[in-house]
Amino acid sequence: MIVKLTLQYDGTTYAGWQRQKGQASIQGLVEDALAPIAGAPVVVHAAGRTDAGVHALGQVASVSLDASIVERLGEATLQRAVNAVLPPEIRVVGIDRAADDFHARFSARAKTYEYRIVNAPIVSPFEYRYVWHLPHPLDTGAMARAAAILVGRHDFAAFQATGSIVHTTVREISALEVRAEPPRLTLVVRADGFLRHMVRTIAGTLVEVGSGRRGSETLRATLETRDRSQSGPTAPAHGLFLVSVEY
Amino acid sequence: MIVKLTLQYDGTTYAGWQRQKGQASIQGLVEDALAPIAGAPVVVHAAGRTDAGVHALGQVASVSLDASIVERLGEATLQRAVNAVLPPEIRVVGIDRAADDFHARFSARAKTYEYRIVNAPIVSPFEYRYVWHLPHPLDTGAMARAAAILVGRHDFAAFQATGSIVHTTVREISALEVRAEPPRLTLVVRADGFLRHMVRTIAGTLVEVGSGRRGSETLRATLETRDRSQSGPTAPAHGLFLVSVEY
Repeated sequence: MIVKLTLQYDGTTYAGWQRQKGQASIQGLVEDALAPIAGAPVVVHAAGRTDAGVHALGQVASVSLDASIVERLGEATLQRAVNAVLPPEIRVVGIDRAADDFHARFSARAKTYEYRIVNAPIVSPFEYRYVWHLPHPLDTGAMARAAAILVGRHDFAAFQATGSIVHTTVREISALEVRAEPPRLTLVVRADGFLRHMVRTIAGTLVEVGSGRRGSETLRATLETRDRSQSGPTAPAHGLFLVSVEY
Repeated sequence: MIVKLTLQYDGTTYAGWQRQKGQASIQGLVEDALAPIAGAPVVVHAAGRTDAGVHALGQVASVSLDASIVERLGEATLQRAVNAVLPPEIRVVGIDRAADDFHARFSARAKTYEYRIVNAPIVSPFEYRYVWHLPHPLDTGAMARAAAILVGRHDFAAFQATGSIVHTTVREISALEVRAEPPRLTLVVRADGFLRHMVRTIAGTLVEVGSGRRGSETLRATLETRDRSQSGPTAPAHGLFLVSVEY
């Protein structure tokens, strides 16, 4: 039986989603929490393989478990059992039975990420782990105009981490909102898929626009170059949240 | 010149306000950040000497600095300079010149603390450091009735950490609100002063009432005993916030 897990995590102290030798990863901890219940090692697939330091409000993962285990325990008990073992930085917030062909990554139709900025002289001690702190003023109007250029079906090769190997760098951004609620500024991006570091490179580039170091119109040319060196810096991981996944 | 500092801090990893040998304390870090600016060691007094793990949204502290330093730098630059040295868990959110006889603790007329509870099966990874997680149901009506008994001028000896040595254990609670915003439950306490562990013991006792392990009316008798063993357990430090200080 395929089980769909909805997860929240504070990625601050983790090496990211993907299991890595000698490092604490979200995947590793979730798999290790499920294995004693499954009575065997399990492999958990996530919709988005978030990088080190990236957070999740609605990550989705899938795992194959013996139907008899799920039926014996029930979803609620299974969820409690996994949460009892996981550290408090990682929570299973939902468990559902899924179709036999469900795969958290391959079945996903769209994902939404949020990039959070605090644009003020001081960032609260309770927020600094979850935002990019930018004390200088930002032109959010210019950022919104630049963001609009990225919406649609484009080749985002210029917004991909160098050295990535993927089949195609074409993705469709269905929405890219620049939400200004001073002193908070949030970029909300919904797309059918994301390249490695894509949201963080978009955030870094939009902040260059907002800082007046780059015109908003330049993003058309940047897309066309397909050259990572033409876009802005990769914004820090700790401002990024995987918000939700649609199927 | 006496300078009044308003501070926020995430107390999670600190030994509390008070400077302690070999441990990172809020007082120690603020004093160490100010000393190079003052050109000499300084002593910083806080309104509330918060315990290890307790947080602050509006702690107030006072320090004596050479008037020439404050005049040369100005408050804004002084604030930036201190924040540049402090870890991000501690922020100076306000700096003001104060009267010559101002002392953060002795001049305080009232302080407000908040004790935060999440009353739900799961607590968010982004909140668990700042709340007491209680998954079982709580009767908030009974808690509010019990809280009302504590309002007023009473001898709170039964709500003081054992082994405390103080001149008097009489304090006046001017407000004690049980704010139920499910799944959040917040106790907001305003008093002219607080005994050691007073808010956490009140929180622990009110939770006993909310859990049905103690009747709300019993708090009258508990106050009269002046005996710490008659009140409830000390609630965990990490749910407690010093919210504001009035002068």
